[in-house]
Amino acid sequence: MTDIARSLELIKRGTDEVLPEELLLKKLQRQKPLKIKAGFDPTAPDLHLGHTVLINKLRQFQELGHEVIFLIGDFTGMIGDPTGKSATRPPLTRDEVLENAKTYEHQIFKILDPAKTTVFFNSSWMGEMSAVDLIQLAAKHTVARMLERDDFSKRYTGGQPIAIHEFLYPLIQGYDSVALKADVELGGTDQKFNLLVGRQLQEAYDQEPQVVITLPILEGLDGVQKMSKSLNNYIGITDAPEEMFGKVMSISDDLMWRYFELLSFRPMEEIDAMRQGIEQGDNPRDVKIRLAEELVERFHSREQAVKAHGAFVARFQKGQIPDEMPEVELTADSGGYPIANLLKDAALVKSTSEAIRMIKQGAVKIDGERIADQSVQIASGTMAVFQVGKRRFARVSIH
Amino acid sequence: MTDIARSLELIKRGTDEVLPEELLLKKLQRQKPLKIKAGFDPTAPDLHLGHTVLINKLRQFQELGHEVIFLIGDFTGMIGDPTGKSATRPPLTRDEVLENAKTYEHQIFKILDPAKTTVFFNSSWMGEMSAVDLIQLAAKHTVARMLERDDFSKRYTGGQPIAIHEFLYPLIQGYDSVALKADVELGGTDQKFNLLVGRQLQEAYDQEPQVVITLPILEGLDGVQKMSKSLNNYIGITDAPEEMFGKVMSISDDLMWRYFELLSFRPMEEIDAMRQGIEQGDNPRDVKIRLAEELVERFHSREQAVKAHGAFVARFQKGQIPDEMPEVELTADSGGYPIANLLKDAALVKSTSEAIRMIKQGAVKIDGERIADQSVQIASGTMAVFQVGKRRFARVSIH
Repeated sequence: MTDIARSLELIKRGTDEVLPEELLLKKLQRQKPLKIKAGFDPTAPDLHLGHTVLINKLRQFQELGHEVIFLIGDFTGMIGDPTGKSATRPPLTRDEVLENAKTYEHQIFKILDPAKTTVFFNSSWMGEMSAVDLIQLAAKHTVARMLERDDFSKRYTGGQPIAIHEFLYPLIQGYDSVALKADVELGGTDQKFNLLVGRQLQEAYDQEPQVVITLPILEGLDGVQKMSKSLNNYIGITDAPEEMFGKVMSISDDLMWRYFELLSFRPMEEIDAMRQGIEQGDNPRDVKIRLAEELVERFHSREQAVKAHGAFVARFQKGQIPDEMPEVELTADSGGYPIANLLKDAALVKSTSEAIRMIKQGAVKIDGERIADQSVQIASGTMAVFQVGKRRFARVSIH
Repeated sequence: MTDIARSLELIKRGTDEVLPEELLLKKLQRQKPLKIKAGFDPTAPDLHLGHTVLINKLRQFQELGHEVIFLIGDFTGMIGDPTGKSATRPPLTRDEVLENAKTYEHQIFKILDPAKTTVFFNSSWMGEMSAVDLIQLAAKHTVARMLERDDFSKRYTGGQPIAIHEFLYPLIQGYDSVALKADVELGGTDQKFNLLVGRQLQEAYDQEPQVVITLPILEGLDGVQKMSKSLNNYIGITDAPEEMFGKVMSISDDLMWRYFELLSFRPMEEIDAMRQGIEQGDNPRDVKIRLAEELVERFHSREQAVKAHGAFVARFQKGQIPDEMPEVELTADSGGYPIANLLKDAALVKSTSEAIRMIKQGAVKIDGERIADQSVQIASGTMAVFQVGKRRFARVSIH
């Protein structure tokens, strides 16, 4: 295989579509650094592993010598992103946008090479744009094509209002590719329409169109819904080492292979070998530990990864905490969930008075840590193993 | 009847709709000068009587003490057609706009009182507008409501493309009402949708909405199609006195009443009395002459009106030109229509050689004027009575 064929193979790993592949090949054959654009919405600056599927792909381009353009759509963020939303979003203030942008930079350099990354804000050209320029941009696309977009089409036929400025957003996002002269743009599969608008506008402005690469949406810890903060099924890249380790260990064996493909930097050959090993009797838990270690190391350090692994083993293996236990979901008030009620509602005790007695006896543990205070409130968002005595366990999620 | 009730009656004369009438009454009751807006396209400064239906209504408002805002929509005219599809509509330069504006002023002040008229150009606020402002403006209207507009709806369902900037133009026109704080806006019935957008935007910008008054589209000389230069069925307000007089005299008796209502400044009582007179045997031609005189006087002078009347009588009455004669429509080459061919094609002679012989004998007249030159070419746009000998007549229009 030639170097270029190998590069193409690497780029295609885990992608949904490469449009068109021939043009990507042509661009790679020029042997010059390409401009790889990815746009980020400044409304959600706390990245989770779902976002890193795309950032990992940017990193691969960097490893192949290309330049990554990390575009923060701060201008469009001030309009609101209509993608996948059923109602018009309220705009962000300029201050909110700038604060969110700083958080982004801090997070992405855990994966990307800062020397090969340029961070742009689209406000730097869009903020200068006049109404006249915007009208001329709007002239380059039609209402009918915009209404072909899935979410717009559903809202229009469903009688839900679409504000006219929402039609301008995909044009502005596409114009960013013109302003940046992007060679390749990456996005989630839900962004395909917008990415193709970029291609079309580059042609309207006499540029070679970009190649569009779409990446699948990563499933959350439940293995069903997309990873998302609001569904509380995510691994945040700023999660503490032990929390991150524990969350990876909680996923199903099936989902583990998906995460390996999309999140691990290991070569596919190595991953395939692990899969074969399990078919021949290896314990999936040992393989999952390698994934958890790799991810903690990436976002923290090798040392923290080893430590988190050690803590996990201490808690779940040496402490005889079983693999299988009841899963309980509870909903907290704003003040939190009182521990005695929690133990009762999770069926670990028969009454709150039994709960209080067990706490006083030192028989209650949360993730292996003994609880002494019977008035403690468990915060919403907590996901932990609660233990009463030696045999009663439940994995409890508080919403 | 109170003064305000009388004003309301006068304003409603000849209108199509007043939306809403209660609000107009409320505004009139404040007894303060109102801002009456009418927008004009800067590309067509040659006004005809069709345009004056609206200008006459503005004049009535002036007579009632209100301020007329004559808005020239030069902003969109200076952008031109950004799709580049219409080669015939290149962007207007600032100089062209100003020159057109002068022509407008020259023409409208034949009807309007300059002391109560302010001329505005919407480029003065739209030219300063940023893309951000335009996006915020676009956020105040929805795609569904825009697609309710008749022409957009037809194009959308008919599969004809609508460029997205076309959705911005009604918003810009509506925003003009916000910028001007208009109390009332006048327009043709075909402008109703746009005028209502103005109301809606004023509310969105926390202003009392304007009252919308629509005026009917005036039929041209044929009494069927709308008066338009391109259909050559118009009376231009700069037409020469005798031409204007003759064109008015050429309309049907039915159309005459329509022109009286929409173009005459005579009170409706007087017009009704004339109508009754005809029912009792008066000659409609005498009433039509009063209309022709009134219009020539308005756009030229009393003296010219009397002179045009005299010339008309001399030609058509003293010269025994019949009322009824064949009507012929011909299409000229760019060079014009050779007189000999015209006479033959209008069936006034049997051959061009007969035509030439009749011209040499001095037996050919155009509108009563003898023709001596057999090589004359009749220009496109001419509408005149051609006569050969004493008995052969035809009213010929050259396109």
